[in-house]
Amino acid sequence: MKKLSVNIKTELKNYPIMVGQDLFGKMSKLVNLSKYSSIFLITDTNVDIYSSKLDIPKNLIKAKYIFEAGEKAKSLQTVEKILTMLADNNADRKSLAINLGGGVATDLGGLVASLYQRGMDFLNISTTIEGMVDASVGGKTGVNLGNNKNYVGTFSQPIAVIIDVDTLDTLDDRNFIAGWAEVIKHGLIRDSQYFKFVVAKHIRKYSKAELVDIIARSCEIKAQVVENDEKEGGLRKILNFGHTIGHAIESLSFDTNYPLLHGEAIAIGMIAEAYISLRLGKVTQQEFNEIQKGIQNVGLPIGIEDLEISQIQKLILKDKKNDAGVIKWTLLNSIGKCEFDVIVEDMNIVDEAIRHILLP
Amino acid sequence: MKKLSVNIKTELKNYPIMVGQDLFGKMSKLVNLSKYSSIFLITDTNVDIYSSKLDIPKNLIKAKYIFEAGEKAKSLQTVEKILTMLADNNADRKSLAINLGGGVATDLGGLVASLYQRGMDFLNISTTIEGMVDASVGGKTGVNLGNNKNYVGTFSQPIAVIIDVDTLDTLDDRNFIAGWAEVIKHGLIRDSQYFKFVVAKHIRKYSKAELVDIIARSCEIKAQVVENDEKEGGLRKILNFGHTIGHAIESLSFDTNYPLLHGEAIAIGMIAEAYISLRLGKVTQQEFNEIQKGIQNVGLPIGIEDLEISQIQKLILKDKKNDAGVIKWTLLNSIGKCEFDVIVEDMNIVDEAIRHILLP
Repeated sequence: MKKLSVNIKTELKNYPIMVGQDLFGKMSKLVNLSKYSSIFLITDTNVDIYSSKLDIPKNLIKAKYIFEAGEKAKSLQTVEKILTMLADNNADRKSLAINLGGGVATDLGGLVASLYQRGMDFLNISTTIEGMVDASVGGKTGVNLGNNKNYVGTFSQPIAVIIDVDTLDTLDDRNFIAGWAEVIKHGLIRDSQYFKFVVAKHIRKYSKAELVDIIARSCEIKAQVVENDEKEGGLRKILNFGHTIGHAIESLSFDTNYPLLHGEAIAIGMIAEAYISLRLGKVTQQEFNEIQKGIQNVGLPIGIEDLEISQIQKLILKDKKNDAGVIKWTLLNSIGKCEFDVIVEDMNIVDEAIRHILLP
Repeated sequence: MKKLSVNIKTELKNYPIMVGQDLFGKMSKLVNLSKYSSIFLITDTNVDIYSSKLDIPKNLIKAKYIFEAGEKAKSLQTVEKILTMLADNNADRKSLAINLGGGVATDLGGLVASLYQRGMDFLNISTTIEGMVDASVGGKTGVNLGNNKNYVGTFSQPIAVIIDVDTLDTLDDRNFIAGWAEVIKHGLIRDSQYFKFVVAKHIRKYSKAELVDIIARSCEIKAQVVENDEKEGGLRKILNFGHTIGHAIESLSFDTNYPLLHGEAIAIGMIAEAYISLRLGKVTQQEFNEIQKGIQNVGLPIGIEDLEISQIQKLILKDKKNDAGVIKWTLLNSIGKCEFDVIVEDMNIVDEAIRHILLP
């Protein structure tokens, strides 16, 4: 296994991410669980099968909350139900929450833990690509507020993140591929060699050892960015590449016949935002083609049907990354390099980019 | 007016508390409001009358949420309603929430602000004694979870606290007196001269100038404690004096014919916990009598009817200040001095103290 450390300056926390195979049977060796008075599991219907594989002293586990897998669980209603479960079982500040699942489990469980009695420790065990390479680093927790993605949340760090690539065996292809969008993003914004490597073959062809390397490198890229900017004042904004338009089409897709997964929406958003970079002369046509082809090769969508350009325009203006109504973009300067807080004066370019990803 | 500063080490925040008369007309001079894109008011039905007196540029105020005054509003349901109001009005990270009211408004509004898009700035304007001397300092936000007081919250600092003692003119006597419990507590744990001064006469007899002094001193005592211990690891626990038993009887009183206000419950809790100190030989009988007489003199209750000792015993074990089921008490060593994390081995002493405050 590989072990790397995330250092957060503004908090007292310093937590390890452990990536490897067959880690669940070694839990007690990886994390000091004995210092907790009780442990609560928060997981979903898809991955609850792994609960029994975790090497945790049975007498420490007080209760388990299993939510229906899917984005719908990311609501304040679920937060209240889990908080009530904790209170009903006398969880205290020396209790530990273990969030087992994808980004929904860790976003939701992290928020619950950060709120319960104003903060209890939590451990994240990621079981999806997206959870492993994105949600695992950065200390963002959150739930949705209606159609507004992640509008309610905190910045709160787990005590550790455990990533066991064996769990990917049971992850369906669609979710596996969707998660890869964030892997590609990390290459696009920081590491051109890595980008080439992660779009080189069908993703199910990567060996377990290669997956450990890829996931660890992705976490490393994200950690380097986040460590220097825990609360999104600056550098961290580069992680928003693809997300301004991506978030908008993700939200809007919920009301269509083909709701997108987060990563699918981000893949399309990255193409649109790479297109803006192209039109501003920041990337070449050849680079743009390479990006679009890479995203398409791994099986990610490169466009979306059934949406109107005006719907997207309206929603990107509401994006929470905005500052007083002005959209600040993260744009590529080349494959592997980017800049943030770019204001695109000519909104026609944005409209063109949106049209590029709207399928007839 | 008096101005003091609260410095929090683990956060980047450093915020002023401004105590005085006729401050509402000078808001724009006291706080830099012009840097915000929009302002949202969160207030209650009792004190909304002051909204129009605030010197805030009208074009900055986007919306106002007025909740029904009282503890009932401190729920996750209200949190969700206010968050939705913010989202519906396109609040962004450069917006400011102004929480105008007592502890409920600032606890509730502070939690909303700390959660909205993972954190927007908020300003607290306290209009009750309790809000001025307790909720104003420390960065605790929170709502209740059923009968569990403040079980859901964050540590989050306002940009400033404004205390205008003129608002006390419209505060009813019962709430005025209840708030005084925290004033008395600050004297009991840190300053014996201050204790003697604040129980010396009927509270409505203090002049406005004296009230400014008293409130500023109370904030100062609390700030000195909190600055050294933002997240309740140590010293801050001394502020819990009276609260272990106080919280329990407050919760339980909700189901009786005479629900207590927070301060009333804390007054009774302080007597019970001073009684434990007495029985452990930490304070003398004379000191205990002085404490009980002082609390009674200002019109606070010193006992409660209609409760069973077993109900209280059960609830104090669930208190969120506990560590793995062991109750850690804050106890007086004399008037003006105390210690924390005291474990009382002989539970008969605790039972006796509870019996002392149970009225037949």
